Amino acid sequence: MHLNSPPQRAPVTYVPVSMQKQLAANRRAIAGKPYERFFLPEIEVPAEGARLLRAGPMPREQTLTPSIADLGRLIDHAPDFPDHGYALLDGPTAYAQSRVVMPDVTTGMFEWWFTWHPIEKERYMLWFPQAHVDNSVVDPARLADTSLSYAERLYDNPNAIDEFIGPSSLKIVIHFAPPASLGLDEDALRRAGLTTSASGTIRVADAPDTTFMVMLHLARDTRAGMELFSRYWIGAHPEFVRFPGGRDAPALLSRLGMDTDGIERLAYEMAVHDMTEFAQLGRILPDVFATFGPT
Amino acid sequence: MHLNSPPQRAPVTYVPVSMQKQLAANRRAIAGKPYERFFLPEIEVPAEGARLLRAGPMPREQTLTPSIADLGRLIDHAPDFPDHGYALLDGPTAYAQSRVVMPDVTTGMFEWWFTWHPIEKERYMLWFPQAHVDNSVVDPARLADTSLSYAERLYDNPNAIDEFIGPSSLKIVIHFAPPASLGLDEDALRRAGLTTSASGTIRVADAPDTTFMVMLHLARDTRAGMELFSRYWIGAHPEFVRFPGGRDAPALLSRLGMDTDGIERLAYEMAVHDMTEFAQLGRILPDVFATFGPT
Repeated sequence: MHLNSPPQRAPVTYVPVSMQKQLAANRRAIAGKPYERFFLPEIEVPAEGARLLRAGPMPREQTLTPSIADLGRLIDHAPDFPDHGYALLDGPTAYAQSRVVMPDVTTGMFEWWFTWHPIEKERYMLWFPQAHVDNSVVDPARLADTSLSYAERLYDNPNAIDEFIGPSSLKIVIHFAPPASLGLDEDALRRAGLTTSASGTIRVADAPDTTFMVMLHLARDTRAGMELFSRYWIGAHPEFVRFPGGRDAPALLSRLGMDTDGIERLAYEMAVHDMTEFAQLGRILPDVFATFGPT
Repeated sequence: MHLNSPPQRAPVTYVPVSMQKQLAANRRAIAGKPYERFFLPEIEVPAEGARLLRAGPMPREQTLTPSIADLGRLIDHAPDFPDHGYALLDGPTAYAQSRVVMPDVTTGMFEWWFTWHPIEKERYMLWFPQAHVDNSVVDPARLADTSLSYAERLYDNPNAIDEFIGPSSLKIVIHFAPPASLGLDEDALRRAGLTTSASGTIRVADAPDTTFMVMLHLARDTRAGMELFSRYWIGAHPEFVRFPGGRDAPALLSRLGMDTDGIERLAYEMAVHDMTEFAQLGRILPDVFATFGPT
């Protein structure tokens, strides 16, 4: 599973009609921007990853919860899980995971990306031309302030997102947070070389005090390129009580009318979305960074 | 667009969760059947066809209606239309089209397929392992009677189908019919070499007297293999008044709660379904025919 050669890519064979229409709108929005040439709608995904996902949900014993113990297992055994997977967990909770190696990408570029792209929504569209609609942070001046550290720019600077996860668009707010605040052991991360994190809790835009999603992006530099491990839990996992407002997640799910089948579909859609956007980011980031990154 | 070399195939990168579950059920159903080895869930589609479809609906001027004049245009200019496409037409009506060349397949094999597969629902599953659920005809003995002609076996022998078109399954009844009865000019078909038809009107199972879909499969033998031209109109096209109960199609659409957006999504899903099932049929038919066809 973990060959050093990059995985075989396949053109995406299905895009929901709503996302096809978003692509046309995004194409108009990005016209004339200095980075327009990096807007590449010919999206591709790892062929083997797509096969893994369409073969059905993961066996339950391979999945992780957002418990502190399971976050520890993730850090210590990150490469041992399937490269792509989805499952329905307790709560109900949609679970999605991935491992991606990005040749010619470094964790430095990846951190830069998270401080650069939310400044203009059209930059965000580069990342997934069919699915990304809007993006902003509460304090863009601080996000753009290169005299500050990555942590100082990103944390406590809520990031409002509008994006398609499958056929429906979702308005959410990402609260990027220090790894330790999420229950990730800093020493264990260091031992594993996972020097970069873009992780946090997520709220829906109209319920800003309720954690209904926990997202991890943990990355390290390897000889083959940057290796990124991602995890998503969306819904009302019992472990959400550890996070701000997580106790209210079950009531929120009810109010949103999300049932178990819908949550399982969301898990698959989230996994497909993640696989697609990180394939795309790996493809464009070296050139985008070379053109717009710090000189 | 019309090279003689077979198009490049790509693994299908997205399968709805409902169809992933159907695959597991179909795998159990087919276990032990003599044709089980032709049940191949690693579905592929022509890469360029998938790109065409995900780029959005066709320009209206390239689409055809089910009018007699447009059926004539189809026969006379069949290869001049894009190989895969979908659109929203008046009615509203979902429109989908394709052109597929199947190396090593003949129109004789194709006709045989339509008399062989509806005898057992598991045979139908070979054609699209994730999407095909059930299949039967009113008079299976007549369909199987090799002393009769293709027309005598297929026509006036309604074919009840249960299949996924996108995430939802659809119970329909196909009434295969002689081309002339649909408004296709027999002389024009002969001139174009389109010697084989598996075309007809389609009703939903619980409204058996209302045409809500017209389907054309017109085929000819070429040096590269069988060339198949398909068209689907689903909904309430004004031209449906030519077909049995077609006048009631608008009321049926209302009752089914299908709005314009839903019909446009159905057009794309139908086009993706058609592209997938005919890629799969082309892949298995030569071997299935060699094993189970007339000796």
